[in-house]
Amino acid sequence: MLLGKKIRLNRLLSDPSGKYLGITVDHAMARGVLPGLEHIDDLVQKIVAGKPDAFTMHKGIAEKCFDKCAGEVPLVLKLTTFGPVHSKQDVQVTSVLDAVRYGADAVSAGAIVMGEHQPDQIAQLGRISDEAHNLGLPLLAHIYPRGLENREDWFKPENVMYAARLGAELGVDIVKTNYTGDPDSFAKVVAAVPTHVAVAGGDAGSPEEIFKTAWGVVAAGGVGITFGRCVFQADDPTAMVKALSKVVHEGFKPNEALEYYKEISSKH
Amino acid sequence: MLLGKKIRLNRLLSDPSGKYLGITVDHAMARGVLPGLEHIDDLVQKIVAGKPDAFTMHKGIAEKCFDKCAGEVPLVLKLTTFGPVHSKQDVQVTSVLDAVRYGADAVSAGAIVMGEHQPDQIAQLGRISDEAHNLGLPLLAHIYPRGLENREDWFKPENVMYAARLGAELGVDIVKTNYTGDPDSFAKVVAAVPTHVAVAGGDAGSPEEIFKTAWGVVAAGGVGITFGRCVFQADDPTAMVKALSKVVHEGFKPNEALEYYKEISSKH
Amino acid sequence: MLLGKKIRLNRLLSDPSGKYLGITVDHAMARGVLPGLEHIDDLVQKIVAGKPDAFTMHKGIAEKCFDKCAGEVPLVLKLTTFGPVHSKQDVQVTSVLDAVRYGADAVSAGAIVMGEHQPDQIAQLGRISDEAHNLGLPLLAHIYPRGLENREDWFKPENVMYAARLGAELGVDIVKTNYTGDPDSFAKVVAAVPTHVAVAGGDAGSPEEIFKTAWGVVAAGGVGITFGRCVFQADDPTAMVKALSKVVHEGFKPNEALEYYKEISSKH
Amino acid sequence: MLLGKKIRLNRLLSDPSGKYLGITVDHAMARGVLPGLEHIDDLVQKIVAGKPDAFTMHKGIAEKCFDKCAGEVPLVLKLTTFGPVHSKQDVQVTSVLDAVRYGADAVSAGAIVMGEHQPDQIAQLGRISDEAHNLGLPLLAHIYPRGLENREDWFKPENVMYAARLGAELGVDIVKTNYTGDPDSFAKVVAAVPTHVAVAGGDAGSPEEIFKTAWGVVAAGGVGITFGRCVFQADDPTAMVKALSKVVHEGFKPNEALEYYKEISSKH
Amino acid sequence: MLLGKKIRLNRLLSDPSGKYLGITVDHAMARGVLPGLEHIDDLVQKIVAGKPDAFTMHKGIAEKCFDKCAGEVPLVLKLTTFGPVHSKQDVQVTSVLDAVRYGADAVSAGAIVMGEHQPDQIAQLGRISDEAHNLGLPLLAHIYPRGLENREDWFKPENVMYAARLGAELGVDIVKTNYTGDPDSFAKVVAAVPTHVAVAGGDAGSPEEIFKTAWGVVAAGGVGITFGRCVFQADDPTAMVKALSKVVHEGFKPNEALEYYKEISSKH
Repeated sequence: MLLGKKIRLNRLLSDPSGKYLGITVDHAMARGVLPGLEHIDDLVQKIVAGKPDAFTMHKGIAEKCFDKCAGEVPLVLKLTTFGPVHSKQDVQVTSVLDAVRYGADAVSAGAIVMGEHQPDQIAQLGRISDEAHNLGLPLLAHIYPRGLENREDWFKPENVMYAARLGAELGVDIVKTNYTGDPDSFAKVVAAVPTHVAVAGGDAGSPEEIFKTAWGVVAAGGVGITFGRCVFQADDPTAMVKALSKVVHEGFKPNEALEYYKEISSKH
Repeated sequence: MLLGKKIRLNRLLSDPSGKYLGITVDHAMARGVLPGLEHIDDLVQKIVAGKPDAFTMHKGIAEKCFDKCAGEVPLVLKLTTFGPVHSKQDVQVTSVLDAVRYGADAVSAGAIVMGEHQPDQIAQLGRISDEAHNLGLPLLAHIYPRGLENREDWFKPENVMYAARLGAELGVDIVKTNYTGDPDSFAKVVAAVPTHVAVAGGDAGSPEEIFKTAWGVVAAGGVGITFGRCVFQADDPTAMVKALSKVVHEGFKPNEALEYYKEISSKH
Repeated sequence: MLLGKKIRLNRLLSDPSGKYLGITVDHAMARGVLPGLEHIDDLVQKIVAGKPDAFTMHKGIAEKCFDKCAGEVPLVLKLTTFGPVHSKQDVQVTSVLDAVRYGADAVSAGAIVMGEHQPDQIAQLGRISDEAHNLGLPLLAHIYPRGLENREDWFKPENVMYAARLGAELGVDIVKTNYTGDPDSFAKVVAAVPTHVAVAGGDAGSPEEIFKTAWGVVAAGGVGITFGRCVFQADDPTAMVKALSKVVHEGFKPNEALEYYKEISSKH
Repeated sequence: MLLGKKIRLNRLLSDPSGKYLGITVDHAMARGVLPGLEHIDDLVQKIVAGKPDAFTMHKGIAEKCFDKCAGEVPLVLKLTTFGPVHSKQDVQVTSVLDAVRYGADAVSAGAIVMGEHQPDQIAQLGRISDEAHNLGLPLLAHIYPRGLENREDWFKPENVMYAARLGAELGVDIVKTNYTGDPDSFAKVVAAVPTHVAVAGGDAGSPEEIFKTAWGVVAAGGVGITFGRCVFQADDPTAMVKALSKVVHEGFKPNEALEYYKEISSKH
Repeated sequence: MLLGKKIRLNRLLSDPSGKYLGITVDHAMARGVLPGLEHIDDLVQKIVAGKPDAFTMHKGIAEKCFDKCAGEVPLVLKLTTFGPVHSKQDVQVTSVLDAVRYGADAVSAGAIVMGEHQPDQIAQLGRISDEAHNLGLPLLAHIYPRGLENREDWFKPENVMYAARLGAELGVDIVKTNYTGDPDSFAKVVAAVPTHVAVAGGDAGSPEEIFKTAWGVVAAGGVGITFGRCVFQADDPTAMVKALSKVVHEGFKPNEALEYYKEISSKH
């Protein structure tokens, strides 16, 4: 591994636990301006205040909003996006070299597999992987079996394993995929993927459920989580980041995290 | 032939017999995480321990798993993959120049011919051939008439001959294709292909059948075999590589190889 | 005309008669491994022994088989191929610059017109023409109205004239097309095409018919012939090349050529 | 470290001892056609027969002479040379990318420091280091304080240490420099240079003295030797390589190596 | 060796003897418009009429004068020149890729060694060698120890050997250097240079002396000659080329060649 990749990867995984708490606010192009994303400038500051291990966004948000807290947390630049009218196809919108210009410590790309667009999705991810490898930037990838028709299939262990392993085969350093619902099944995914595996939050529901998912991922041997909606739609995004950090980095149980969240969000 | 290609090709064919035993673990993206591929890190070490002439995998597995045994056996980097939802189309996911960065002694590409995707498959293989030729890297190609509808047609001598010859016409140095089932018919394929011809293992069945196939290929004048499932789904992958080496390099008969396999796998 | 193109074109047309006898063995990918093409290594030597004005093949055959007689006759590298499952579409498999690396004196491309693929066929041919023109390499093109449904239409003078003229319009130096069946009609094709026009042999039948076609082309003012099957499926390919040379370069009548062929092939 | 560099470096250091025996025949441009170098074709075969860990030469010798033994030992391509009339200045004559085309497992560059040309020497070495690093090729460098006026200063520990450390600072993987004359002083050089340190032979004198130097380098913790004249001016170059291998890889004492050399060179 | 280089080199060495007779008219920029070079258009036709194995000139002369006899003999394009005011320094004036556009079968470069410009001369030759190697063009080089002050040193065997060997080390395919004056000393040069060695004519004097030199080179094992002034300052350049061909290709003794020259030049 190039020293450059090692340095930047270690920065993302700098917590003594070796676990990873990433936050993403890359949803607007993909899913619309979801509730919570409207005041993105404030939101960015609030999330940084919670001190996640890394923060993923598109270049425009980085330049316009993250600029104020430049250097406070590692920046992961998202290079691709799907969209409401092309929900099965991630499209590259930023180059790897330009991510260097934006100060990214890593780049992130999406790939939607097991559907009709898999050929172009893997060609694109493979090319981005070569470019990131060549420049010493860690590559995160959001890989889901969302090409399948039925939503429930997106979470089945065999499909999640396929997607996550595909990322590892293509040189992804931190694979972000769907949670299979319980630690036992997810442990099998982790075991079959020879790189770091993190989990997306999605519509994770109540804070209690969110903490349960985060706890389960770590219990299963995953490297951690990369959550978006769970955080920016929380009553108190800063507190939510802090509470998730307790789960991911310090092993808080879901109920302990919930208690902690309530405590600090009320004070906030 | 550029000196670079000659050096690297001689390294792959370094056994005094001039025969080739390649092992592949490039299946996970193409066919799913098959049984035996889950613990890829262990598997890579086990296969290297058997000392094949070369070992084919994708870049992520090379970086994450093969790194521990870097330099012990020649590395062939796989540049393309098909997938469960695009089983008739190999897609390029790694560039030839990046294969140099990963330390490959050769590159490998797949092409699925005699089906609707033949035009893009041969355009891609032709381009990869030019690039490899220009950098002095030998090109292996996995070429099968799998574009045909009926599975049995994939093994018919005329179709296998067409696929293998197509590889030779495009400058492939070692063509890997299907076995036609017996040495006589396969000898005709070999005779019509003016480059090295190796055979894939597929679902080769019992160890006895595996050794029979390997023996038949060499008897027919083929350069050797490039096996995957036969090896990583064997009870003892290291012993299986060693036993196959006896067949390919030393002319063991199938029953001799089976006896040898039983002996060393029990002791293992 | 760039000096480079003139030098190389003169080399192809070096016979004092100014007429052209080209041989092709580029069929295996396009039509399957036809009878006569199986032992390609021997065949290449036999054809070179007959001293044609140029010899057309794909890069792999050049590197693996023609290497032994490197420099003995001019090499025309074929850059495209159609296939059994894409018989209406020639696909580029080698770049013009790489043809320089393989030592080609000229490049050859196919284009199948008057069918659904005409748009991509002429776009491809036009681009190859630009690249060859830029590097000073003559461009040969195999252009046929084979896009039409009915086989008999492929030989009608108006269709052949269209195809051949299209080649000339795109900068092709030697157009190879179908023979219209008699010198009078073919003379009209030649008259309407302001570049060299040669004819393909196809399934030309008996040696007598082959010589009749060759004679007719020259009589009609064509530059000569580019034959494949007529030669490699002949009883004696070397003798057939020599006999065709008598027709094309020395004006032998069909019956004189036949007598000559019988004489030298019996002695052979 | 890129996987490519690791694989290739492991190949150079493949002996279980981890020690390195490199042979060089790169002197003709730098010092004239020295005695022993005249019949370079024979010499190359004789040296390969001794099985050194790697063999360094310029591209023309690689293409014309090493081609016959392509792949038998790792090839290190020399990219620079000084000359009889520019003895203080190594000049680049081959690019790193072209070294890949020649099949090199590593590249080698010279740099003459502590003289008037140091500025251009380190600029050149730094640039070559970047290019080799980018492609995953190990970099060897011949670095000597030969810019100094007095020959005896070239061997002083402080000057050798400066030169060798400069190589390490610029990313060189195996530094080749002058021997300081005894293991104690050389151990200090090795200690101050955080990369592999090897030693040049120069006019090493009698076989006994040659073995003494080789032994001293290894005793001092050096990675090994890169000898030229000592080998190609020996009575029996093959035997000399084998005897040096005993010292470097198996710890033979000088007198043991001398005895071994006499034994096998007489039999040779 | 790339097929392209092999084809083009075989074309230059196409005489059954394997010997080489090259003619050069590349002097005007280097030495002034020497007597005989004034009517270059006529001269080019006269030399071609003698059918040398190859003909070396600059691009402008190729385009303006050689164009008339394009393809009749192989063209070697000269890429560099020295000048009356920079007689120790060859400067590149044409690129290798442009030589392809001019239809060159090979490129030729000069390098003046053993003088103050040796560093830039070898850097330039090394770079041209890489480019020609990459495109499959043979490289001829005019290499002389003309950097030395005293003219007599330019012909001393040790200096000629150094210069010629330097060419071979840098990948030159046909080295052109000075004749050492007698076959015995030149045979030592040839033996120490693992590539083809040809000789320049220079101010070779009378036809008798010219033939003596040509004969001596071949007797010494040289590949042949590359003469300029000897030919274009002869009374009958066409006859001189033909007579030299008798010496080089057919082993005529100097007196036989002289007789032949007188015979055909009087008739001419």
